[in-house]
Amino acid sequence: MAPGLTVETANRAAVECEYAVRGEVVVAAGALEAKLAEPGNALPFEKVVRCNIGNPQALGQKPVTFFRQVLALCDWPALLDMPEAAAIFPKDVQARARAILGGIPGGTGPYSHSQGAPFLRQEVARAIERRDGGHHCDPNNLYLTDGASPAVQAVMRASLRGPEDAILVPVPQYPLYSATLRLCNGSMIPYYLDEANEWGLSVDELARAVGEARAAGKTVRGLAVINPGNPTGQCLSEENMRDVVKFCEREGIALMADEVYQQNVYAEGKAFSSFKKVVCDLGSGVELFSFHSISKGFYGECGRRGGYMEAHNVSESFRALLYKLSSVNLCSNLNGQICMSLVMNPPQEGEESYPLFAQEREAILSSLKRRSRKLVAALNELEGVSCNEAQGAMYAFPQIRLPARALAAAEAEGRKGDQFYSMELLKATGVVVVAGTGFKQVEGTLHFRTTFLPSEEDIDSVVDKVTQFHKSFMEKYRD
Amino acid sequence: MAPGLTVETANRAAVECEYAVRGEVVVAAGALEAKLAEPGNALPFEKVVRCNIGNPQALGQKPVTFFRQVLALCDWPALLDMPEAAAIFPKDVQARARAILGGIPGGTGPYSHSQGAPFLRQEVARAIERRDGGHHCDPNNLYLTDGASPAVQAVMRASLRGPEDAILVPVPQYPLYSATLRLCNGSMIPYYLDEANEWGLSVDELARAVGEARAAGKTVRGLAVINPGNPTGQCLSEENMRDVVKFCEREGIALMADEVYQQNVYAEGKAFSSFKKVVCDLGSGVELFSFHSISKGFYGECGRRGGYMEAHNVSESFRALLYKLSSVNLCSNLNGQICMSLVMNPPQEGEESYPLFAQEREAILSSLKRRSRKLVAALNELEGVSCNEAQGAMYAFPQIRLPARALAAAEAEGRKGDQFYSMELLKATGVVVVAGTGFKQVEGTLHFRTTFLPSEEDIDSVVDKVTQFHKSFMEKYRD
Repeated sequence: MAPGLTVETANRAAVECEYAVRGEVVVAAGALEAKLAEPGNALPFEKVVRCNIGNPQALGQKPVTFFRQVLALCDWPALLDMPEAAAIFPKDVQARARAILGGIPGGTGPYSHSQGAPFLRQEVARAIERRDGGHHCDPNNLYLTDGASPAVQAVMRASLRGPEDAILVPVPQYPLYSATLRLCNGSMIPYYLDEANEWGLSVDELARAVGEARAAGKTVRGLAVINPGNPTGQCLSEENMRDVVKFCEREGIALMADEVYQQNVYAEGKAFSSFKKVVCDLGSGVELFSFHSISKGFYGECGRRGGYMEAHNVSESFRALLYKLSSVNLCSNLNGQICMSLVMNPPQEGEESYPLFAQEREAILSSLKRRSRKLVAALNELEGVSCNEAQGAMYAFPQIRLPARALAAAEAEGRKGDQFYSMELLKATGVVVVAGTGFKQVEGTLHFRTTFLPSEEDIDSVVDKVTQFHKSFMEKYRD
Repeated sequence: MAPGLTVETANRAAVECEYAVRGEVVVAAGALEAKLAEPGNALPFEKVVRCNIGNPQALGQKPVTFFRQVLALCDWPALLDMPEAAAIFPKDVQARARAILGGIPGGTGPYSHSQGAPFLRQEVARAIERRDGGHHCDPNNLYLTDGASPAVQAVMRASLRGPEDAILVPVPQYPLYSATLRLCNGSMIPYYLDEANEWGLSVDELARAVGEARAAGKTVRGLAVINPGNPTGQCLSEENMRDVVKFCEREGIALMADEVYQQNVYAEGKAFSSFKKVVCDLGSGVELFSFHSISKGFYGECGRRGGYMEAHNVSESFRALLYKLSSVNLCSNLNGQICMSLVMNPPQEGEESYPLFAQEREAILSSLKRRSRKLVAALNELEGVSCNEAQGAMYAFPQIRLPARALAAAEAEGRKGDQFYSMELLKATGVVVVAGTGFKQVEGTLHFRTTFLPSEEDIDSVVDKVTQFHKSFMEKYRD
């Protein structure tokens, strides 16, 4: 008789992979939320506020009207032919839905091509060209995916042959990278972002990391760069990006550019440039995978799962391999594919939907900017806490210096200091943050990641709760 | 300098995995379709008819109105509050959309729980209980997924530790199983369905396969059963299923029940029973994973990607592992999750949408039945061809006996006889079928799989084209 399926008899790679943003603290938050629903629960807070993950609409952000109107028509095309539709839907919404339904035989019902419906890839390709100053984008190089995560996984799964193959990953990183590397039995080579220098990315540090990896017998296949950074928020300058591209070309390393926060830039004087543009500007032959998503930006359409990957300068045989792997899942969902094409091709000035669209976009982005500043400023007021500006993305990633007695209490529970802090914060306030441990960090430092996504009405109370908690935590454990 | 990314330097498991239903013949079909668009292309057919995959809406099947109406409202909830909505949407559609939006905070915008929104899992669980004669279904055991394929992959990825771990897979099989086993570095142990006996599944044959696998040092972790069968269409009797369950229990093998065609049963005297029901009827403790999808049945919502997996009698630690793996992709798409809940909870008699719903369902299922009979009867008329009745599912899987000269011509091209036949059929008629080789088959036999999904208007011409092609093929290669 074979052994039953338990964690003891399971695939070790699956058991050992860690995904902190939905890990222990999130499971505990779920249990507390259930307890809150019980009368007389005696918990010291009234709701759980999930700042553990960039999930804007879960915290009250409203969807962008234009996207949802087009999607509703694509879901039930009969609506388009009803006399009432003209009164309900702006003309450009109707026209867009008709164009999409005309471009995808069968609409959202059939499986599409496994890389995504050709019409929608065309739409995305033209938008990438506009974004990148006209550099050509071939729709055959595009893969429309259920968010950016499956695309990152596909590249790693296709390329990594075993622990001898490695990917350079920033520290701190988004745990998708470490988790996927473990699942694929590849090796993670950390390169450290410079916290003292606004989480800067240095090519010298990349060279150090590659040198050490090679000395240890690893073949470095890829470099993951998250820009704007997660959890750091750092936005790379074009000059910095050019140096990174040249480094990758020199070393024969494919560049994996996670650019899902490309619409989330808040810092004065900072702007997003894509690695695709920089690679093309340089005329570089570096292998580039760039990843985008409908889940972030001002749209925050996390629940539809949409994204794209562009494979630029990648061999035909490797692109065919990526196609084959995507075909095992048949295709990504069409509702998400359509939304990706809309995000890349929003209403333009002069179109009926434009004024409302522009107003919604501006309201969300300017509010995110205000909230990021408020949160970072408040964190920097706290004893033992320092936090870089969130130049972009959706997170603050403060460093916390905890008293020795707090660290001892953490150790007694078998937790790292930041895990202990995050769990105590949850229990005292209902605010869910993720310990820096989950993102990896310089040995001996402690951090946590929190989104600044609670609404303007809620963010003050989150700031107050964190501030009060921090004060009493420091009092309790003062050495 | 590291090597570039090519098929030569890629992960061998990815390179070696094969997924025939979107393989060589489909790539060739795409090229022919592009050529058809050229004026004066001189091709001997006017369109490519894709019978390679169960993709009903690609071949003209209309979506079920109720599902699309609810989805449209969930995508743009503001519609619900417009005065026009009352005139457009039946009352039960509006009520259903309100219930769903009330049950999922933020609607389709946020990421849900990684196993699926709790409200929707509740809905699916209650429907499973009704289907299975009241046996309890715990929503905590449900995983809402982007179709059944990712669910099958998740179980294999979580359980298989290496080539020493094996899964029993029917031959012929759906290539998802062989492809995923190769990707996960697990071993496939074939058990043969009995073509001479309506593709019957025999427990003696399972015992033979397990015995040989164990003698070869394999640990058999799971048994995949596809019911109704793909590509065979066979529908298992409850008696047969009970024997399979007892066998799995005796041998300590988890049962993976692919039940995506549960609504597609056409044969007189046949009915679908779920393995969940049979396991519960027996009071068995066998570990059971059952898979369902919104892509098949009479709904055919392939493009939304929706499905569920129920893990019954599975240890808490293994279920937690599956949760963790699903969390790396955050969640399945909400539009597909909602559609899964609707498919399991369609309109009921007395509700405003019921008459139209019942009429659409009946029209699609009775037409599929007619088309299956027409196609199978026509195939059985052909020289050297024999085809079992399609008791269920969406496919005919005829055996073809080809002349020695045809086999020699195939070999000269480096193809198997059925691959050669399928490619010649495509080139002559534009009809896309998949060679039996892709599904695996008894050594020395040849088959192909074709859907019977072309519309009633098209199926006659498909039958004619295949018949004409077959006659001239046999003439050309007659020994």
